[in-house]
Amino acid sequence: MSAEGELIAERIAALAAVSARPDALERVHLSPEHAAVNALVAPWFTEAGLAVRVDAAGNLCGRIEGRTPGLPALLLGSHFDTVPDAGRYDGMLGVLLALAAIRRLAPEARRLPFALEIVALSDEEGTRFGTALSGSRALAGTFDPAWWDVRDAEGVSYREAAVSFGLDPARIAEAGRAPHELVGYLETHIEQGPELLDQDRPLGVVSSIGAATRHTVVVTGKAGHAGGTPWARRRDALVSASEMILAGEAIAREAGALATVGTIRAFPGGVNVIPGRVEFSLDLRAESTALRESTLARIASAARAVGERRRVSVEWRENYRADAVVCAPALRAAVENGIAGATGAAVPAPIWSRAGHDGLAIAAITDVAMLFVRCGNDGISHHPDESVLAADIDTALDALTRTIETLAEHHRAP
Amino acid sequence: MSAEGELIAERIAALAAVSARPDALERVHLSPEHAAVNALVAPWFTEAGLAVRVDAAGNLCGRIEGRTPGLPALLLGSHFDTVPDAGRYDGMLGVLLALAAIRRLAPEARRLPFALEIVALSDEEGTRFGTALSGSRALAGTFDPAWWDVRDAEGVSYREAAVSFGLDPARIAEAGRAPHELVGYLETHIEQGPELLDQDRPLGVVSSIGAATRHTVVVTGKAGHAGGTPWARRRDALVSASEMILAGEAIAREAGALATVGTIRAFPGGVNVIPGRVEFSLDLRAESTALRESTLARIASAARAVGERRRVSVEWRENYRADAVVCAPALRAAVENGIAGATGAAVPAPIWSRAGHDGLAIAAITDVAMLFVRCGNDGISHHPDESVLAADIDTALDALTRTIETLAEHHRAP
Repeated sequence: MSAEGELIAERIAALAAVSARPDALERVHLSPEHAAVNALVAPWFTEAGLAVRVDAAGNLCGRIEGRTPGLPALLLGSHFDTVPDAGRYDGMLGVLLALAAIRRLAPEARRLPFALEIVALSDEEGTRFGTALSGSRALAGTFDPAWWDVRDAEGVSYREAAVSFGLDPARIAEAGRAPHELVGYLETHIEQGPELLDQDRPLGVVSSIGAATRHTVVVTGKAGHAGGTPWARRRDALVSASEMILAGEAIAREAGALATVGTIRAFPGGVNVIPGRVEFSLDLRAESTALRESTLARIASAARAVGERRRVSVEWRENYRADAVVCAPALRAAVENGIAGATGAAVPAPIWSRAGHDGLAIAAITDVAMLFVRCGNDGISHHPDESVLAADIDTALDALTRTIETLAEHHRAP
Repeated sequence: MSAEGELIAERIAALAAVSARPDALERVHLSPEHAAVNALVAPWFTEAGLAVRVDAAGNLCGRIEGRTPGLPALLLGSHFDTVPDAGRYDGMLGVLLALAAIRRLAPEARRLPFALEIVALSDEEGTRFGTALSGSRALAGTFDPAWWDVRDAEGVSYREAAVSFGLDPARIAEAGRAPHELVGYLETHIEQGPELLDQDRPLGVVSSIGAATRHTVVVTGKAGHAGGTPWARRRDALVSASEMILAGEAIAREAGALATVGTIRAFPGGVNVIPGRVEFSLDLRAESTALRESTLARIASAARAVGERRRVSVEWRENYRADAVVCAPALRAAVENGIAGATGAAVPAPIWSRAGHDGLAIAAITDVAMLFVRCGNDGISHHPDESVLAADIDTALDALTRTIETLAEHHRAP
């Protein structure tokens, strides 16, 4: 491992120690740990030659000018907030790789045709308030004012937390960036899946940040006595839901999408009572918005057919919808060039990101692209067992640096 | 409706008013309402010529001697305790019909070859302590001493409740009856199902009180990120459970048994997390113990096959088991004779009781039989909408009286 790789590994350990829990990593938006991690990292930015600030949304930002001051910036970054009981690479690795790449490039930054900026976003996961991407939404100028009144599990509102953190809610718009200020957004992130591990490749390029929806599906039949209701009279919401869940699996699998039912509840919930109502969640992800829509329509149609046959009604409540963001061809080509240069091998087929990322929000104001780093441990993430091979950190740093250099060349060319 | 039928209807209304809740009927074992209903009904027993006592388990008992004092008794009865938000016929109707039949027969009781006894059992449902049939188990001498330490939702133990009620736990055995004291046990009960309603018949005879088991089925796969886990790597406990639930339905239906999954929980229970564990209940009922066993074995085998295919494990925890009690042929023939006499029509095919009854416990000491009364409202029970047609009360009283007379004739014959 290179000295730069060692430094990244040390800093990842230092970041992992900034946690709300002694036994696990948890660092949420606008918390004391959020402030602590910004304070810990700001000197690292300064030492790399970056001008540092915390923006109006709590994101930690750094900038180094290009060949003339005030040029549009290539924005690099990822996030510092975590899920509960998190791994230490999700988010953090992307920020530290961006920082290391800028350290490498800083001596020649004055020759670059764009400024370099780095952002450590503060609310990608939405762990505290359920407001995922609120940091990057502020940066993109799409912060939802309704979020101010959302409360965390302790009853503290987003607004109160922001004020305690030292922010002024009235100035949230100041976190927003204009399209003309940016060249693009480039994020390095662990894959959060096993594709690269299976292919024995350290790095991959992202084709799109996939489309996702989350629904609550409510199946309503009729409750009845488990003994007193003959088969022909049953309108059992749970056997109906079971058929719908299996149909959803078969349809999504066939379509190349991902469908997951993570929660289910049966009402009234007595062991000797036929469920009259069942509610389950459906998390659906696909590479493109069109594929998600067609898959969702097929699943809904199958559920409707089950409902008609079993005399239960089906109601869909949408809780979340994110359309796919297709990575910008020019940025993606630069990432592929970076990977090829760093690995000396052919670039693996693009991977669509099954997980959401800040790029979903930032795409509203600039082109986005992503570089994926292979996960160890079967691709596990959002878990303390999340891991990255030490050698891959060096390779990723090399690829990211080359990507930025490629972009600088192409930016100069026209 | 006859004057006797009117009296029964009035008394059912009076019993329904003795409730722990102003808005609904709930009367549980060893509660103030249990004491109140015993106090309300005792004078009705006395007035019918019965000697009254509350036994060592809280059951209200009455006796009228036959042609000589001390003869074995034909025991009639049902229960006074209820489920939460109960109907007013489940249990109560059987006690009041027994009382009305004894009132009719009292003038000639001194010619009967057996005594007549009536028992209003106090814990058929097990609502308060989960100790279903504890009243009849005490009567049968099979009271489980472990029950003394079971606590209700408020933390009151069965023992404490018994003492508050005025009972002496050390004397529970005194509630037990010996086989030689009894001729048989005969219970009238609402059907709790729609069979008689569908056949347009007021009364039916029970072939058996069906066999039942209740299990918790635990399916264990592997939790994983809804985005990061490809189809081939999933070990999803919930889609596995869904397949098992559908297999259970198909197998039980084909076998003529009843299977119901009333509760299900998925863990860890995040909308974006593949369930690593699912627990669901399985309530299985069949006419005979053998059919229940063979159906259970087939369902378990199907679940095992699903588990192998989907790489999840399946664990079965038995929470309840009651073997079927086949109604005694002689008692059942007398019931059929009573129905035929009262209705002037052919007796419908015997019905197996899908619900448990005190006869399950009392069969340990004497023969049992049951007379079913048609339910209104689609057969609904355990619900305020539970109903009985007014005319059926008269017909049931006639049939029950004729049943007792038939038994008296046959008892005298040999």
